[in-house]
Amino acid sequence: MKKNAIYAQSGGVTSVINASASGVIRACRDYSDKIGTLYAAENGILGVLNEELFDTSNLTDSEIDGLRKTPGGAFGSCRYKLKSLVDNRKEYERLIEVFSAYDIGYFFYNGGNDSADTCLKVSQIANELGYPLQAIHIPKTIDNDLTETDNCPGFGSVAKYVATSIREAGIDLASMYKTSTKVFILEVMGRHAGWIAASCGLASEKDGQPPHIILFPEIPFDEELFLAKVKYSVENYGYCVIAVSEGAKDKSGMELSASGASIDDFGHRQLGGVAPIVAQIIKNKLGYKYHWAVADYLQRSARHLASRVDSEQAYAVGYEGVRLATEDNANGVMAAIIRTSQNPYMWETRAVELELVANHEKFMPRDFISEDGFHITQKCRDYLVPLITGEEYPDYENGLPKYVELDKELMNKKLAKFI
Amino acid sequence: MKKNAIYAQSGGVTSVINASASGVIRACRDYSDKIGTLYAAENGILGVLNEELFDTSNLTDSEIDGLRKTPGGAFGSCRYKLKSLVDNRKEYERLIEVFSAYDIGYFFYNGGNDSADTCLKVSQIANELGYPLQAIHIPKTIDNDLTETDNCPGFGSVAKYVATSIREAGIDLASMYKTSTKVFILEVMGRHAGWIAASCGLASEKDGQPPHIILFPEIPFDEELFLAKVKYSVENYGYCVIAVSEGAKDKSGMELSASGASIDDFGHRQLGGVAPIVAQIIKNKLGYKYHWAVADYLQRSARHLASRVDSEQAYAVGYEGVRLATEDNANGVMAAIIRTSQNPYMWETRAVELELVANHEKFMPRDFISEDGFHITQKCRDYLVPLITGEEYPDYENGLPKYVELDKELMNKKLAKFI
Repeated sequence: MKKNAIYAQSGGVTSVINASASGVIRACRDYSDKIGTLYAAENGILGVLNEELFDTSNLTDSEIDGLRKTPGGAFGSCRYKLKSLVDNRKEYERLIEVFSAYDIGYFFYNGGNDSADTCLKVSQIANELGYPLQAIHIPKTIDNDLTETDNCPGFGSVAKYVATSIREAGIDLASMYKTSTKVFILEVMGRHAGWIAASCGLASEKDGQPPHIILFPEIPFDEELFLAKVKYSVENYGYCVIAVSEGAKDKSGMELSASGASIDDFGHRQLGGVAPIVAQIIKNKLGYKYHWAVADYLQRSARHLASRVDSEQAYAVGYEGVRLATEDNANGVMAAIIRTSQNPYMWETRAVELELVANHEKFMPRDFISEDGFHITQKCRDYLVPLITGEEYPDYENGLPKYVELDKELMNKKLAKFI
Repeated sequence: MKKNAIYAQSGGVTSVINASASGVIRACRDYSDKIGTLYAAENGILGVLNEELFDTSNLTDSEIDGLRKTPGGAFGSCRYKLKSLVDNRKEYERLIEVFSAYDIGYFFYNGGNDSADTCLKVSQIANELGYPLQAIHIPKTIDNDLTETDNCPGFGSVAKYVATSIREAGIDLASMYKTSTKVFILEVMGRHAGWIAASCGLASEKDGQPPHIILFPEIPFDEELFLAKVKYSVENYGYCVIAVSEGAKDKSGMELSASGASIDDFGHRQLGGVAPIVAQIIKNKLGYKYHWAVADYLQRSARHLASRVDSEQAYAVGYEGVRLATEDNANGVMAAIIRTSQNPYMWETRAVELELVANHEKFMPRDFISEDGFHITQKCRDYLVPLITGEEYPDYENGLPKYVELDKELMNKKLAKFI
């Protein structure tokens, strides 16, 4: 009667997605009365389609513990969205073929919006085709834009990283502005939602403390107001520190990073980077000396500065996903995080229907952003602070974090190649 | 008979320059039989010229300890190089005037090449003008380009930060390359010397581990060889991680960041950033999807990831500077770090003549760079590893590092304003 399970990682990876993997693996071992072998697919759903699977039974306790403190996706991730059943029935039939060949009864998919959609479709299709399957979504995204959950594992650690980094860079600038750089700009991720940019605001705990300005994707960029704010900051505090979301947009909805200034002589747009664009606007109009940084992958892989709460929640939703599938016989749900108390911060995990999650996005509420649109409110701080709380350091060897690298040997294939 | 002392910070700040300040302050208290009051000048030598001084006697033990774990320059720094005595005699006379007004017998100047030069000139001028002064240089620079010292406080922590960051980003990329980004580029500081870029190489401990390529300022950029190397890496490892020094140059000696590709439609050059330039070369010639990051100030202010050895050495050279001045009656010297044993790494502090240091630069030896010019050698690793060893975390509050902010009240001035 025992069925086997497949776990896969999807979308942009985080510094704690492997903690979720660790939770899933541990739980499958704890629920060995109901779950037989747990396979991990290589590179998300593609690994299922291509029958590229690892047997996680081979993992040692030390490897499973090591995953809790290792960034990136240990099993490989993918950016791949299943089409609808109408558009590509073949893919779904293939999934069922693979599930069937490995006697899979449980599918744990670890990702963001797109993965929630994939997970829901897989659940629905299995049902339509009469294949008994429980598909559970394990939330993960640094963008923090999944609905129906207090927050998304991966986000808290990015938030801690960017807030720490901008505090440190702000202290640097404060030492130098009298004879050198007056403006510093940090570009952070978040193409649609400003959660990461907002987190930078946590570094500013009193008036005049950096960052002085935050540019959110939710608030159209107003150059005049912005420049006035920069000028005010430099004239009153001596310098100006700015956090800008990669997705900051002008009033027409066009991303600033795609504006004319970023197009080079060859007409290329892929140089990217909104920080240099904002720097140039300031230089042209106000003449201040500037520096800028683009954190890019550094922010989402910085396991050395993970939030302990985030790491614990990542593990918990992984574990809870398996518990929901076995104890509660759940299907088509996400293991969500529920905030049960604000002060002290308390939380628990709970199932929410995937239909409420898939293809929805959670943006910053307007009352999380200050009236002038350039900073965060106390309400936003109250929400964010618990998520960055606590440290959980990796081990170090020769001065560098010692991360687990799995010796992944793919299983021999049973099926014909999928074209 | 007791004389007072002035301490000042100069040039680009680091995550451990305040540890040197802490060492100077502690030592002055320990040598209170010879040193009266220790003043700190605001913004380096400018604070002396403008008579902008703090009395460090007001600092509490907890503040002095807090400085050991606080990045930036707590007393303010400056980018200001004294002219020669011939060109600006007035400035030197003013320095002596301020020293005289505060009965200063000791001048501790904490900085890099330019500051070593300033410190030496101050020492010489005091001698010429018959003013009794002992001027001691406390080394500091993330560039690690001072001669006559094993390394420069500030460098080890940047090295640890960039090596950790590129390891983490490399793990991220390794999870994603099959369906997404194939090339990641991290731009690090170091305009003339490649020490910081070299440190990224520490993250690669076995064949195929990122970073796969390092671009040093010391090795002229050869586009053809570089592209072949990128292609090889992507074809053999699946992806390619590159560390590039901001000072990477082409064969004519021009910085890559100043190349045509960085000039926008308006002819501006200040966009800066060599990472996007390198990314574009790869995109144009090989078509790989890329991401890039520019660490900028983040790398030199990242006290959250300081090297313990670096922090200890920063404190030690501060303390040693005061000891040299008092016990050894030294003048015109730098408190250098001497490596007395490689394995295990052991070091001590010692005075070296400032004339051997001022205006010299230490570049990467050719045998620290691999034959093909794209990586580091074992000899280089042996030199670097001890400098990034050990962690020394700051305290955290509300999820963020709790850094000391001094309540600096300037003393009332005794002299007329310096024009």
